[in-house]
Amino acid sequence: MGKNGKITPRDKDYNQWYLDVIQAAELADYAPVRGCMVIRPEGYAIWESIQHILDGMFKETGHVNAYFPLLIPESFMKREAEHVEGFAPECAVVTHGGGQKLEEPLYIRPTSETIIWSMYKKWINSYRDLPLLINQWANVLRWEMRTRLFLRTTEFLWQEGHTAHATEEEAEQETRKMLEVYRQLAEEYMAIPVIPGVKSDREKFAGALRTYTIEAMMQDHRALQAGTSHNLGQNFARAFDVTFQDESGARRLVWASSWGVSTRLIGAIIMTHSDDKGLVLPPRIAERKVVVIPIPGKKAEPGAVFAEADKLASELGIRRHVHVDARPNVSPGWKFHHWEQHGVPVRIELGPRDIEQGQAVVVRRDTGEKRPVPRPELARVVGDTLEAIQAGLFERALAMQREYTFRVDDQETFRNKLDDPGGFLLAHWCGDAECEERIQNETKATIRCIPLDAPEEKGTCPFCDRPSQRRVVFAKAY
Amino acid sequence: MGKNGKITPRDKDYNQWYLDVIQAAELADYAPVRGCMVIRPEGYAIWESIQHILDGMFKETGHVNAYFPLLIPESFMKREAEHVEGFAPECAVVTHGGGQKLEEPLYIRPTSETIIWSMYKKWINSYRDLPLLINQWANVLRWEMRTRLFLRTTEFLWQEGHTAHATEEEAEQETRKMLEVYRQLAEEYMAIPVIPGVKSDREKFAGALRTYTIEAMMQDHRALQAGTSHNLGQNFARAFDVTFQDESGARRLVWASSWGVSTRLIGAIIMTHSDDKGLVLPPRIAERKVVVIPIPGKKAEPGAVFAEADKLASELGIRRHVHVDARPNVSPGWKFHHWEQHGVPVRIELGPRDIEQGQAVVVRRDTGEKRPVPRPELARVVGDTLEAIQAGLFERALAMQREYTFRVDDQETFRNKLDDPGGFLLAHWCGDAECEERIQNETKATIRCIPLDAPEEKGTCPFCDRPSQRRVVFAKAY
Repeated sequence: MGKNGKITPRDKDYNQWYLDVIQAAELADYAPVRGCMVIRPEGYAIWESIQHILDGMFKETGHVNAYFPLLIPESFMKREAEHVEGFAPECAVVTHGGGQKLEEPLYIRPTSETIIWSMYKKWINSYRDLPLLINQWANVLRWEMRTRLFLRTTEFLWQEGHTAHATEEEAEQETRKMLEVYRQLAEEYMAIPVIPGVKSDREKFAGALRTYTIEAMMQDHRALQAGTSHNLGQNFARAFDVTFQDESGARRLVWASSWGVSTRLIGAIIMTHSDDKGLVLPPRIAERKVVVIPIPGKKAEPGAVFAEADKLASELGIRRHVHVDARPNVSPGWKFHHWEQHGVPVRIELGPRDIEQGQAVVVRRDTGEKRPVPRPELARVVGDTLEAIQAGLFERALAMQREYTFRVDDQETFRNKLDDPGGFLLAHWCGDAECEERIQNETKATIRCIPLDAPEEKGTCPFCDRPSQRRVVFAKAY
Repeated sequence: MGKNGKITPRDKDYNQWYLDVIQAAELADYAPVRGCMVIRPEGYAIWESIQHILDGMFKETGHVNAYFPLLIPESFMKREAEHVEGFAPECAVVTHGGGQKLEEPLYIRPTSETIIWSMYKKWINSYRDLPLLINQWANVLRWEMRTRLFLRTTEFLWQEGHTAHATEEEAEQETRKMLEVYRQLAEEYMAIPVIPGVKSDREKFAGALRTYTIEAMMQDHRALQAGTSHNLGQNFARAFDVTFQDESGARRLVWASSWGVSTRLIGAIIMTHSDDKGLVLPPRIAERKVVVIPIPGKKAEPGAVFAEADKLASELGIRRHVHVDARPNVSPGWKFHHWEQHGVPVRIELGPRDIEQGQAVVVRRDTGEKRPVPRPELARVVGDTLEAIQAGLFERALAMQREYTFRVDDQETFRNKLDDPGGFLLAHWCGDAECEERIQNETKATIRCIPLDAPEEKGTCPFCDRPSQRRVVFAKAY
């Protein structure tokens, strides 16, 4: 944060800008434990919005919530070979409990497939027990070397869905359905345009057959993986011996999916919409959608203006989402600044002359546009303005994503574009994991996804000249 | 669980009955990690109800949610002497992370006072920053030797409120206010009568000045501590050096409260209301308040009866809380049994003759009362019945609590009553912690609380004959 609590501009220092926005909006703080964060009330309110929206969508699609233990026996982690290889190195390990050394070390869950599939073994017996559609809201831990508030922290909050199905088709349908739920959350609520696609084998979840992802572009043109959904095939059913009796009486292995999004989404919202004045929140995510600021003026009786501000707040029809800043000893200018930094979508200013003229001044957080509105029209105008902001934020982010998405066909352009201005590179890829690794080592770009709607197109991999069937998305990523 | 999935009767084996009710209602399961449980979807739905109710009450009383880290450095735990003595022996300890031995061991939070007050140090500077009213929904771990599903598990879910105040009076008011919130939750929603009171010093929270509690009586006449609220005085402010500048410019130590309830409340609901047929849920806690069971009969077209059941469900005005059990291959009798075990407050039976006569049969889960109701009156009758069940459960539990609360004045009666039938013993107590300990060692009774409304009454402690000013509640407890 610069002098006078000023936010560092994006073009001066993007990373510092991000931290300044978080600090000014009081969203989070580093905790005394390395790599962990404290989600402050203003940040947690964003998570509560996300939870509320997603939980509703999960229940509408037939899922129920449950809770599984935090601690996982080491032996469970080891049952699925790829899984333990991927996760064990980043686990926190409990070796002592109740003052004694434990016989078997316990891992703090980095994700819950193993503990959940050990229970599914008990619960699944017949085709009548399927599908099993369970979600869990929980904290998980992954020991991270480089952390960044919200985007990458040792402990984070998330939801993880774990489903069991009788057939491969059903598991695949579920995996795709939940990706679509995430796309809706991102685009329709968080106003973040995303590219849904499939991960390359190298980037897929440890233990999955196939991982789907939604990839967003941040304002520095880096990619951010915003949600993933995994078709786990029969890998965990095999590892935990989970079978069911089908209608013909035969025993068959169960098919599975898992999917999750985390508090990283709060980072995505901040990085997608905020500006040099501070946080910008999409109206559908903001719990505090409107702030009313009474401006007593010098002559008027302050009490009357404050009372009128309260009255106005009640007229908007969304009282729960309207905050009246009635602090007596703080100047209106300071309040404007404060609520701008906190990302409130709409500000309403009300002074004695506005009251006389039966109007109020409506200010948009995103564009700064300011206009007087007659009181009888205020509720409608505020509603329309919130919708306009929601749509405007999405359009602006989509325009940026399009502007910084490049079709590249040769190495030099690939490297140049990646370097400046960065963005999504639509390039051919031979399909080989070693070539993919070499590209990452040389350029720091990873394959973000093979877009679901990528058309077939013959071409050659710009790094090895081998043939390719379609373009994939390369980018530097968070 | 007995043969044929039958629940063991309470009077045969109370502890087995409790486990059978949980298993039959699919509420929870033991996890593969010792002392931990899996909260299954049916059990988690109860927790979601509790969360929804409490979270609303917290927000109405000005509190906001936040999230603090799971892991606490050992050195933080040691800052408050009583606190570390009380909690360190039951902590799980992380010694390795990311494949390396940690420099300082990290404790999995048994409660979050220390980590939270280390942050309050950063956030509190002036009287303008007070009061700070924060709540957290989280998992905590306490290594338990003897566990029992919901009532005592190594890991459990809870909420913990942590507030900071400028004055002692405010901290005390907050502590009492939150106890009252818990009393409301218990009595008005969970239909569990409780005795609000103060803990003796020996039973208070490690680090508190004073602990308030609500104590409930289970059907075996044992006490269950259902919620606690602590006046922490300046103990944690002192340990973490949290001061504020008051309006005169002087620096003063902050005053504090903390308060929590946990998934143990689910155990309290089960033990208070359930019967030998299985779970009984208070309507305000049950997400599924009504189950409709179509009974096709032998002659009628099953499809028509099922369709009519759907129509009926929509007529009740609480569609979200009504489940139509339309499984085609399961008999109505089996369904009755199943939903009885699951504690659904109201069952509606609908057969071809009911349809002809424009009626449906309404059955109360609590009393078993069954009566035909004309369809036009159904919504009203169902609404009234849910309210009657809610009130009836509370009255029944209150009657039991009163029946098994005894005024005892001598050791022999104390021991006899405690032995059979058990219950709450209103007895005098000298106020001495050693005497209290001796009573516990000799009788297994602890002081549950000194009731808030206990009148002054001169008497003598039945164990040491020293003088006493009022009666306290002794009981054997979970």
